[in-house]
Amino acid sequence: MIILGIDPGTRITGYGVIRYSNNSFLRVASGSINLPSDKPIPYRLEIIYNELGKIIKRHKPDEFAIETAFYGKNVQSAMKIGYARGVSILCALHNNIPTSEYSPREVKKSVVGKGSASKDQVLYMIKTLLNIKSEKIKVDESDALAIALCHAFRKNIPIKKTKDWKAFIEAYPERVIE
Amino acid sequence: MIILGIDPGTRITGYGVIRYSNNSFLRVASGSINLPSDKPIPYRLEIIYNELGKIIKRHKPDEFAIETAFYGKNVQSAMKIGYARGVSILCALHNNIPTSEYSPREVKKSVVGKGSASKDQVLYMIKTLLNIKSEKIKVDESDALAIALCHAFRKNIPIKKTKDWKAFIEAYPERVIE
Repeated sequence: MIILGIDPGTRITGYGVIRYSNNSFLRVASGSINLPSDKPIPYRLEIIYNELGKIIKRHKPDEFAIETAFYGKNVQSAMKIGYARGVSILCALHNNIPTSEYSPREVKKSVVGKGSASKDQVLYMIKTLLNIKSEKIKVDESDALAIALCHAFRKNIPIKKTKDWKAFIEAYPERVIE
Repeated sequence: MIILGIDPGTRITGYGVIRYSNNSFLRVASGSINLPSDKPIPYRLEIIYNELGKIIKRHKPDEFAIETAFYGKNVQSAMKIGYARGVSILCALHNNIPTSEYSPREVKKSVVGKGSASKDQVLYMIKTLLNIKSEKIKVDESDALAIALCHAFRKNIPIKKTKDWKAFIEAYPERVIE
Protein backbone atom coordinates (compact mmCIF):
# COMPACT_ATOMS: atom_id res chain seq x y z
CA MET A 1 0.00 0.00 0.00
CA ILE A 2 1.23 3.49 -0.89
CA ILE A 3 0.32 6.31 1.48
CA LEU A 4 0.59 10.05 0.86
CA GLY A 5 0.94 12.18 3.99
CA ILE A 6 0.51 15.94 3.75
CA ASP A 7 1.40 18.83 6.05
CA PRO A 8 -0.34 21.74 4.32
CA GLY A 9 0.42 25.43 4.71
CA THR A 10 0.14 28.54 2.54
CA ARG A 11 3.91 29.13 2.77
CA ILE A 12 5.20 25.58 2.64
CA THR A 13 3.24 22.38 2.06
CA GLY A 14 5.18 19.27 3.03
CA TYR A 15 4.50 15.88 1.48
CA GLY A 16 5.70 12.35 2.12
CA VAL A 17 4.98 9.20 0.14
CA ILE A 18 5.68 5.86 1.80
CA ARG A 19 5.21 2.26 0.74
CA TYR A 20 4.09 -0.10 3.43
CA SER A 21 3.89 -3.88 3.18
CA ASN A 22 4.35 -6.75 5.60
CA ASN A 23 5.09 -4.37 8.44
CA SER A 24 8.04 -2.79 6.63
CA PHE A 25 8.15 0.82 5.50
CA LEU A 26 9.95 2.53 2.64
CA ARG A 27 10.13 6.18 1.75
CA VAL A 28 9.14 6.54 -1.90
CA ALA A 29 9.38 10.34 -2.09
CA SER A 30 9.19 13.39 0.15
CA GLY A 31 9.72 17.12 -0.11
CA SER A 32 8.03 20.43 0.17
CA ILE A 33 6.07 22.68 -2.13
CA ASN A 34 7.30 26.23 -1.59
CA LEU A 35 4.61 28.83 -2.11
CA PRO A 36 5.52 32.40 -3.13
CA SER A 37 4.70 34.53 -0.08
CA ASP A 38 4.43 37.69 -2.22
CA LYS A 39 1.59 36.22 -4.27
CA PRO A 40 -2.10 36.27 -3.21
CA ILE A 41 -3.63 33.28 -1.42
CA PRO A 42 -5.81 32.09 -4.36
CA TYR A 43 -2.72 31.87 -6.55
CA ARG A 44 -0.94 29.75 -3.90
CA LEU A 45 -3.96 27.49 -3.37
CA GLU A 46 -3.98 26.67 -7.06
CA ILE A 47 -0.28 25.78 -6.89
CA ILE A 48 -0.92 23.43 -3.92
CA TYR A 49 -3.79 21.73 -5.78
CA ASN A 50 -1.80 21.38 -9.02
CA GLU A 51 1.45 20.21 -7.42
CA LEU A 52 -0.33 17.65 -5.22
CA GLY A 53 -2.14 16.48 -8.35
CA LYS A 54 1.25 15.86 -10.01
CA ILE A 55 2.58 13.99 -6.94
CA ILE A 56 -0.55 11.80 -6.93
CA LYS A 57 -0.23 11.04 -10.64
CA ARG A 58 3.45 10.17 -10.25
CA HIS A 59 3.24 7.96 -7.15
CA LYS A 60 -0.37 6.71 -7.31
CA PRO A 61 -1.04 6.57 -3.55
CA ASP A 62 -3.84 4.30 -2.37
CA GLU A 63 -4.61 6.43 0.66
CA PHE A 64 -4.17 10.01 1.82
CA ALA A 65 -3.56 11.20 5.39
CA ILE A 66 -3.61 14.71 6.83
CA GLU A 67 -3.45 16.35 10.23
CA THR A 68 -6.60 17.73 11.70
CA ALA A 69 -6.87 20.27 14.53
CA PHE A 70 -4.51 23.16 15.18
CA TYR A 71 -2.72 23.83 18.44
CA GLY A 72 -1.73 27.47 17.93
CA LYS A 73 -3.63 30.46 19.20
CA ASN A 74 -3.60 32.70 16.15
CA VAL A 75 -6.97 32.55 14.37
CA GLN A 76 -5.58 34.03 11.14
CA SER A 77 -2.89 31.31 10.99
CA ALA A 78 -5.54 28.66 11.69
CA MET A 79 -7.67 30.00 8.84
CA LYS A 80 -4.76 29.98 6.39
CA ILE A 81 -3.87 26.40 7.33
CA GLY A 82 -7.55 25.62 6.77
CA TYR A 83 -7.33 27.07 3.23
CA ALA A 84 -4.38 24.79 2.41
CA ARG A 85 -5.92 21.73 4.09
CA GLY A 86 -9.26 22.17 2.34
CA VAL A 87 -7.60 22.39 -1.05
CA SER A 88 -5.35 19.37 -0.31
CA ILE A 89 -8.30 17.22 0.80
CA LEU A 90 -10.23 18.22 -2.32
CA CYS A 91 -7.29 17.25 -4.52
CA ALA A 92 -7.25 13.77 -2.94
CA LEU A 93 -11.02 13.40 -3.41
CA HIS A 94 -10.82 14.53 -7.05
CA ASN A 95 -8.27 11.77 -7.58
CA ASN A 96 -10.52 9.20 -5.86
CA ILE A 97 -8.15 8.66 -2.94
CA PRO A 98 -9.77 8.02 0.45
CA THR A 99 -8.70 10.55 3.08
CA SER A 100 -7.98 10.09 6.79
CA GLU A 101 -7.40 12.72 9.45
CA TYR A 102 -5.29 12.50 12.60
CA SER A 103 -4.65 14.99 15.36
CA PRO A 104 -1.01 16.06 15.92
CA ARG A 105 -1.18 14.13 19.22
CA GLU A 106 -2.30 10.93 17.51
CA VAL A 107 0.52 11.27 14.98
CA LYS A 108 3.17 11.64 17.68
CA LYS A 109 1.66 8.88 19.78
CA SER A 110 1.71 6.36 16.94
CA VAL A 111 5.19 7.24 15.67
CA VAL A 112 7.01 7.74 18.99
CA GLY A 113 4.57 6.24 21.49
CA LYS A 114 3.98 9.53 23.30
CA GLY A 115 1.50 12.27 22.37
CA SER A 116 3.70 14.98 23.81
CA ALA A 117 6.93 13.88 22.05
CA SER A 118 9.37 16.53 20.82
CA LYS A 119 10.00 17.37 17.15
CA ASP A 120 13.49 15.84 17.47
CA GLN A 121 12.11 12.56 18.78
CA VAL A 122 9.64 12.39 15.89
CA LEU A 123 12.42 13.14 13.40
CA TYR A 124 14.66 10.47 14.93
CA MET A 125 11.93 7.83 14.67
CA ILE A 126 11.08 8.77 11.10
CA LYS A 127 14.71 8.49 10.05
CA THR A 128 15.03 5.15 11.85
CA LEU A 129 11.79 3.62 10.58
CA LEU A 130 12.31 4.78 7.01
CA ASN A 131 16.05 4.13 7.03
CA ILE A 132 16.96 7.69 6.05
CA LYS A 133 20.66 8.31 6.72
CA SER A 134 22.49 11.55 7.43
CA GLU A 135 20.13 13.53 5.27
CA LYS A 136 18.65 16.88 6.19
CA ILE A 137 14.89 16.79 6.24
CA LYS A 138 12.81 19.93 6.61
CA VAL A 139 10.18 20.15 9.34
CA ASP A 140 7.21 20.13 6.93
CA GLU A 141 8.65 17.14 5.08
CA SER A 142 9.24 15.14 8.28
CA ASP A 143 5.78 16.06 9.58
CA ALA A 144 4.25 14.80 6.33
CA LEU A 145 6.20 11.54 6.58
CA ALA A 146 5.09 11.20 10.22
CA ILE A 147 1.42 11.54 9.18
CA ALA A 148 1.90 8.90 6.47
CA LEU A 149 3.57 6.55 9.01
CA CYS A 150 0.81 7.18 11.53
CA HIS A 151 -1.74 6.13 8.93
CA ALA A 152 0.28 2.99 8.10
CA PHE A 153 0.36 2.01 11.79
CA ARG A 154 -3.36 2.61 12.14
CA LYS A 155 -4.02 0.45 9.10
CA ASN A 156 -1.91 -2.30 10.61
CA ILE A 157 -3.39 -2.26 14.09
CA PRO A 158 -6.95 -3.47 14.53
CA ILE A 159 -8.74 -0.34 15.71
CA LYS A 160 -12.15 -1.89 16.13
CA LYS A 161 -12.01 -4.12 19.15
CA THR A 162 -13.60 -7.47 18.51
CA LYS A 163 -15.95 -8.93 21.07
CA ASP A 164 -14.64 -12.49 21.29
CA TRP A 165 -12.23 -14.91 19.62
CA LYS A 166 -14.80 -16.03 17.06
CA ALA A 167 -15.30 -12.44 15.89
CA PHE A 168 -11.53 -11.89 15.97
CA ILE A 169 -10.86 -14.91 13.75
CA GLU A 170 -13.52 -13.76 11.31
CA ALA A 171 -12.01 -10.27 11.18
CA TYR A 172 -8.37 -11.39 10.96
CA PRO A 173 -8.21 -14.89 9.38
CA GLU A 174 -4.53 -14.37 8.48
CA ARG A 175 -3.63 -14.34 12.17
CA VAL A 176 -4.64 -17.94 12.66
CA ILE A 177 -1.67 -20.34 12.66
CA GLU A 178 -2.80 -23.64 11.29
CA MET B 1 -21.54 42.39 -14.92
CA ILE B 2 -22.63 39.40 -12.83
CA ILE B 3 -21.02 38.96 -9.42
CA LEU B 4 -21.09 35.89 -7.18
CA GLY B 5 -20.60 36.57 -3.48
CA ILE B 6 -19.91 33.70 -1.11
CA ASP B 7 -20.06 33.31 2.67
CA PRO B 8 -18.47 29.90 3.17
CA GLY B 9 -18.83 27.61 6.15
CA THR B 10 -18.74 23.86 6.77
CA ARG B 11 -22.32 23.92 8.12
CA ILE B 12 -23.91 26.47 5.82
CA THR B 13 -22.39 28.18 2.80
CA GLY B 14 -24.34 31.23 1.69
CA TYR B 15 -24.28 32.51 -1.89
CA GLY B 16 -25.62 35.58 -3.64
CA VAL B 17 -25.59 36.36 -7.36
CA ILE B 18 -26.21 39.95 -8.41
CA ARG B 19 -26.27 41.73 -11.74
CA TYR B 20 -24.84 45.19 -11.77
CA SER B 21 -25.01 47.67 -14.63
CA ASN B 22 -25.21 51.45 -14.86
CA ASN B 23 -25.15 51.82 -11.10
CA SER B 24 -28.25 49.68 -10.62
CA PHE B 25 -28.29 46.33 -8.86
CA LEU B 26 -30.47 43.28 -9.27
CA ARG B 27 -30.53 40.07 -7.30
CA VAL B 28 -30.29 37.18 -9.75
CA ALA B 29 -30.23 34.38 -7.18
CA SER B 30 -29.33 33.74 -3.58
CA GLY B 31 -29.60 30.98 -1.03
CA SER B 32 -27.62 28.66 1.10
CA ILE B 33 -25.98 25.28 0.70
CA ASN B 34 -26.76 23.24 3.81
CA LEU B 35 -24.04 20.80 4.72
CA PRO B 36 -24.83 17.63 6.70
CA SER B 37 -23.22 18.17 10.11
CA ASP B 38 -23.13 14.42 10.79
CA LYS B 39 -20.91 13.78 7.78
CA PRO B 40 -17.09 14.17 7.77
CA ILE B 41 -15.48 17.41 6.59
CA PRO B 42 -14.04 16.02 3.30
CA TYR B 43 -17.55 14.93 2.26
CA ARG B 44 -18.90 18.42 2.98
CA LEU B 45 -16.03 20.15 1.15
CA GLU B 46 -16.85 18.16 -1.95
CA ILE B 47 -20.51 19.23 -1.70
CA ILE B 48 -19.46 22.90 -1.44
CA TYR B 49 -17.20 22.57 -4.49
CA ASN B 50 -19.82 20.73 -6.55
CA GLU B 51 -22.77 22.97 -5.61
CA LEU B 52 -20.80 26.16 -6.25
CA GLY B 53 -19.79 24.67 -9.59
CA LYS B 54 -23.48 24.22 -10.46
CA ILE B 55 -24.30 27.80 -9.39
CA ILE B 56 -21.43 29.10 -11.55
CA LYS B 57 -22.59 27.07 -14.55
CA ARG B 58 -26.16 28.30 -14.13
CA HIS B 59 -25.51 32.02 -13.60
CA LYS B 60 -22.13 32.48 -15.32
CA PRO B 61 -20.70 35.13 -12.97
CA ASP B 62 -17.91 37.35 -14.33
CA GLU B 63 -16.37 37.87 -10.92
CA PHE B 64 -16.25 36.18 -7.54
CA ALA B 65 -16.02 37.87 -4.13
CA ILE B 66 -15.36 36.37 -0.71
CA GLU B 67 -14.69 37.57 2.81
CA THR B 68 -11.20 37.36 4.15
CA ALA B 69 -10.14 37.49 7.82
CA PHE B 70 -12.07 36.09 10.75
CA TYR B 71 -13.08 38.04 13.84
CA GLY B 72 -13.87 35.17 16.23
CA LYS B 73 -11.49 33.76 18.80
CA ASN B 74 -11.96 30.03 18.27
CA VAL B 75 -9.05 28.62 16.25
CA GLN B 76 -10.96 25.43 15.33
CA SER B 77 -13.82 27.50 13.88
CA ALA B 78 -11.32 29.66 11.98
CA MET B 79 -9.72 26.54 10.52
CA LYS B 80 -13.05 25.09 9.42
CA ILE B 81 -14.02 28.37 7.75
CA GLY B 82 -10.61 28.22 6.08
CA TYR B 83 -11.44 24.76 4.69
CA ALA B 84 -14.66 26.05 3.15
CA ARG B 85 -13.10 29.26 1.84
CA GLY B 86 -10.14 27.47 0.26
CA VAL B 87 -12.45 25.08 -1.57
CA SER B 88 -14.74 27.94 -2.71
CA ILE B 89 -11.82 29.99 -4.05
CA LEU B 90 -10.51 26.93 -5.88
CA CYS B 91 -13.91 26.34 -7.47
CA ALA B 92 -13.92 29.92 -8.81
CA LEU B 93 -10.38 29.54 -10.16
CA HIS B 94 -11.21 26.21 -11.83
CA ASN B 95 -14.05 28.01 -13.59
CA ASN B 96 -11.72 30.85 -14.68
CA ILE B 97 -13.47 33.47 -12.56
CA PRO B 98 -11.24 36.16 -11.02
CA THR B 99 -11.52 36.28 -7.23
CA SER B 100 -11.51 39.26 -4.86
CA GLU B 101 -11.31 39.28 -1.08
CA TYR B 102 -12.74 41.81 1.37
CA SER B 103 -12.58 42.01 5.14
CA PRO B 104 -15.91 41.95 7.02
CA ARG B 105 -15.23 45.61 7.92
CA GLU B 106 -14.77 46.60 4.28
CA VAL B 107 -18.01 44.83 3.36
CA LYS B 108 -20.00 46.68 6.03
CA LYS B 109 -18.36 49.99 5.23
CA SER B 110 -19.16 49.80 1.55
CA VAL B 111 -22.76 48.60 1.99
CA VAL B 112 -23.79 50.69 5.02
CA GLY B 113 -21.03 53.31 5.21
CA LYS B 114 -19.82 52.15 8.60
CA GLY B 115 -17.36 49.34 9.36
CA SER B 116 -18.99 48.57 12.70
CA ALA B 117 -22.57 48.43 11.37
CA SER B 118 -24.99 45.89 12.88
CA LYS B 119 -26.27 42.78 11.05
CA ASP B 120 -29.74 44.40 10.93
CA GLN B 121 -28.40 47.53 9.27
CA VAL B 122 -26.61 45.44 6.65
CA LEU B 123 -29.77 43.40 6.04
CA TYR B 124 -31.87 46.58 5.70
CA MET B 125 -29.50 48.07 3.11
CA ILE B 126 -29.31 44.84 1.12
CA LYS B 127 -33.10 44.61 0.97
CA THR B 128 -33.31 48.27 -0.05
CA LEU B 129 -30.55 48.22 -2.66
CA LEU B 130 -31.69 44.93 -4.22
CA ASN B 131 -35.39 45.74 -3.88
CA ILE B 132 -36.18 42.61 -1.87
CA LYS B 133 -39.59 42.94 -0.23
CA SER B 134 -40.96 41.26 2.87
CA GLU B 135 -38.93 38.15 2.30
CA LYS B 136 -37.03 36.27 4.95
CA ILE B 137 -33.37 36.06 4.16
CA LYS B 138 -30.99 33.91 6.17
CA VAL B 139 -27.84 35.42 7.67
CA ASP B 140 -25.44 33.51 5.39
CA GLU B 141 -27.48 34.47 2.33
CA SER B 142 -27.56 38.17 3.25
CA ASP B 143 -23.84 38.12 4.07
CA ALA B 144 -23.12 36.62 0.65
CA LEU B 145 -25.24 39.29 -1.06
CA ALA B 146 -23.43 41.98 0.98
CA ILE B 147 -20.06 40.70 -0.26
CA ALA B 148 -21.30 40.73 -3.86
CA LEU B 149 -22.61 44.31 -3.40
CA CYS B 150 -19.33 45.38 -1.80
CA HIS B 151 -17.48 44.11 -4.86
CA ALA B 152 -19.89 45.93 -7.19
CA PHE B 153 -19.29 49.20 -5.32
CA ARG B 154 -15.55 48.71 -5.44
CA LYS B 155 -15.74 48.08 -9.16
CA ASN B 156 -17.75 51.27 -9.62
CA ILE B 157 -15.63 53.59 -7.53
CA PRO B 158 -12.26 54.63 -8.92
CA ILE B 159 -9.88 53.17 -6.35
CA LYS B 160 -6.69 54.42 -7.93
CA LYS B 161 -6.58 58.15 -7.45
CA THR B 162 -5.63 59.93 -10.65
CA LYS B 163 -2.99 62.64 -10.48
CA ASP B 164 -4.72 65.37 -12.47
CA TRP B 165 -7.74 66.07 -14.68
CA LYS B 166 -5.93 64.93 -17.84
CA ALA B 167 -5.23 61.50 -16.28
CA PHE B 168 -8.79 61.38 -14.90
CA ILE B 169 -10.32 62.03 -18.32
CA GLU B 170 -8.12 59.33 -19.85
CA ALA B 171 -9.13 56.84 -17.16
CA TYR B 172 -12.87 57.70 -17.18
CA PRO B 173 -13.82 59.09 -20.62
CA GLU B 174 -17.50 58.29 -19.96
CA ARG B 175 -17.57 60.90 -17.21
CA VAL B 176 -16.97 63.78 -19.59
CA ILE B 177 -20.16 65.66 -20.50
CA GLU B 178 -19.76 66.99 -23.98
